[in-house]
Amino acid sequence: MSEDINQVSPHSTKPVVLSIDAMGGDLGVPVVIAGMHIFSKENQDVKFIIHGDEAQIKPLLAKRSALSKLCEIHHAEAVVSMDDKPSQVMRHGKNTSMWSCIDAVRNKQAEVAVSCGNTGALMAVSMIRLRKVPGINRPAIAILWPSENPQGSNVMLDVGADIRAEASDLLQYALMGASYARNGLDVKRPRIGLLNVGTEEHKGRIELKEAHERISEQAERANFEFVGFVEGTDIPSDRVDVIVTDGFTGNVALKTAEGTALVVRKLLSQTFKQTPFAMLGGLLAYGALRRLSKRIDPRHSNGGVFLGLNGTVVKSHGGADANGIAAAIRLAHQLAKNGFTDKLAARVASGSMINNDVTSKD
Amino acid sequence: MSEDINQVSPHSTKPVVLSIDAMGGDLGVPVVIAGMHIFSKENQDVKFIIHGDEAQIKPLLAKRSALSKLCEIHHAEAVVSMDDKPSQVMRHGKNTSMWSCIDAVRNKQAEVAVSCGNTGALMAVSMIRLRKVPGINRPAIAILWPSENPQGSNVMLDVGADIRAEASDLLQYALMGASYARNGLDVKRPRIGLLNVGTEEHKGRIELKEAHERISEQAERANFEFVGFVEGTDIPSDRVDVIVTDGFTGNVALKTAEGTALVVRKLLSQTFKQTPFAMLGGLLAYGALRRLSKRIDPRHSNGGVFLGLNGTVVKSHGGADANGIAAAIRLAHQLAKNGFTDKLAARVASGSMINNDVTSKD
Repeated sequence: MSEDINQVSPHSTKPVVLSIDAMGGDLGVPVVIAGMHIFSKENQDVKFIIHGDEAQIKPLLAKRSALSKLCEIHHAEAVVSMDDKPSQVMRHGKNTSMWSCIDAVRNKQAEVAVSCGNTGALMAVSMIRLRKVPGINRPAIAILWPSENPQGSNVMLDVGADIRAEASDLLQYALMGASYARNGLDVKRPRIGLLNVGTEEHKGRIELKEAHERISEQAERANFEFVGFVEGTDIPSDRVDVIVTDGFTGNVALKTAEGTALVVRKLLSQTFKQTPFAMLGGLLAYGALRRLSKRIDPRHSNGGVFLGLNGTVVKSHGGADANGIAAAIRLAHQLAKNGFTDKLAARVASGSMINNDVTSKD
Repeated sequence: MSEDINQVSPHSTKPVVLSIDAMGGDLGVPVVIAGMHIFSKENQDVKFIIHGDEAQIKPLLAKRSALSKLCEIHHAEAVVSMDDKPSQVMRHGKNTSMWSCIDAVRNKQAEVAVSCGNTGALMAVSMIRLRKVPGINRPAIAILWPSENPQGSNVMLDVGADIRAEASDLLQYALMGASYARNGLDVKRPRIGLLNVGTEEHKGRIELKEAHERISEQAERANFEFVGFVEGTDIPSDRVDVIVTDGFTGNVALKTAEGTALVVRKLLSQTFKQTPFAMLGGLLAYGALRRLSKRIDPRHSNGGVFLGLNGTVVKSHGGADANGIAAAIRLAHQLAKNGFTDKLAARVASGSMINNDVTSKD
């Protein structure tokens, strides 16, 4: 292990160190290494600690000498599968690549962790190894949702860390989401919306009314704009940058959009088989249609981020290809470079102190 | 008023009578009349009672003599606008076309009501004029969601009648949804799914666990198949025919899919402007793409249905064009023809009596 990997601090001139779980993706280790390779060609300001089966990783790195110099391997015996229950992994997962990947962040060897593994298990391991930031009751999973905004994505949270959220949790999601939009998407003064249903009569869930009030109170000192209640139609719009909701609703919305995008892809390919004209049209527009199909699927802005822990974890989609992995690494790198973990903790601490009038810009 | 309109009963050889609210749609009275005209050309087994401003309706009917013979006009002074609060309409709405439209069903002059008006107000007026079916705690709004099933649509409920739902409500939604799928979509033995979030760990909302048990118990005698928990991705799939959820979650899912479909439409038109090849491709595939764009938007299976009241109300989308109105009328006609209101009431009564072993097939 090289010395500069052992001790890193944000804002230093030392390269950013990322902890990568090589196992657990649907497409196997080669795709993870290929994703690292794509990223390393565009950015050499990085070191990787790779966790997993050394026998699989080594030969793949041997073929890429430039990438190899940026990497060290932490061998791990076991792999968390997609079917493993989070509770089992918490008890018996010490020898897995996922555990090792998170521990590198816990031990300050790396700044941000990236894994394609099972979301429930990854959240469970992250919770027990990194622990919650003081002041946070429920951590959240934030995703980037393809949007009509100039930055190309909106932030939505929580999409499934917890099925419940009180008003105080929703306020914390707003603070964390604002910080994420600033550091992950370079949005200076994010516009935050609280997800609700359409008609006035329905705007009645008690915790949403209370959250509306509390988020509104914090907007100025926390340097975001609160646009109030938004609806499902607003999620991909340019009316907001951050959408706050509980993990049950957020997860259903995300999966619904995924399902819609999947049907669109299937129908598009059927559409272009309907008539010879349509078939020719499809051939001519093939590249443009492929880009479209990627843009509408939230999974393709690859990288859910766990917020509210003492360390940042990027959850790549299990089925991500090399470009998807590279996107998740790019996001992890940007967050690490910006010292996001520390800024988020400071933001939450400041948000928890109601009488503190120091205005943080992070 | 002709005599056969005054007294109608389901299953009779008399034509089906539908009560149509001519006002309240975004595109005005002409589009409602045009929609009736489209339907009347394909099916003459119908009589219409039209509610609204006679001065606007009469000249439009005068131009269509065949349609005119099927219609009688009930003049109403006032119109419920999209901005009117349900509570105001309940108190001061007696002279509106919406009120008159619902009252025709209440008074047994018509079997099913169709309105493009404000959803909240329409539900409020329907609730106070028609009242809930004995045994129903919370009525629901069911919509047809474009799906990969042979019938082309799945049923989803509740999409916004109420933001809460206990386990007992979810059971009633399952019974009502099954009855609707049989009578509205001709699905003999509907497969029912209960909407939840992905991972095992999250399957924890108490009311969902309890509803799972109770729906499962009723499946055989109520002649549906219970597929258990489903996710957002399953809503447009061929895994289920009916998706049961609370009105908050259902409304967010619906609006999210609408938002996604809207972005797809915008991006499709951009896509075909990207390169000359793509532009030519778009021209060649224009018709096929237009059909695609309609198929993915839940609004285009026009017609939300209010379930659980002593009378059936079809809510057409406010922005529906003549074809959309015709689709809503077609649905209303099919439900009336099948005697759906009575069958649903019988189904709910049978579902409420746990020790009743009479198996109804409706």
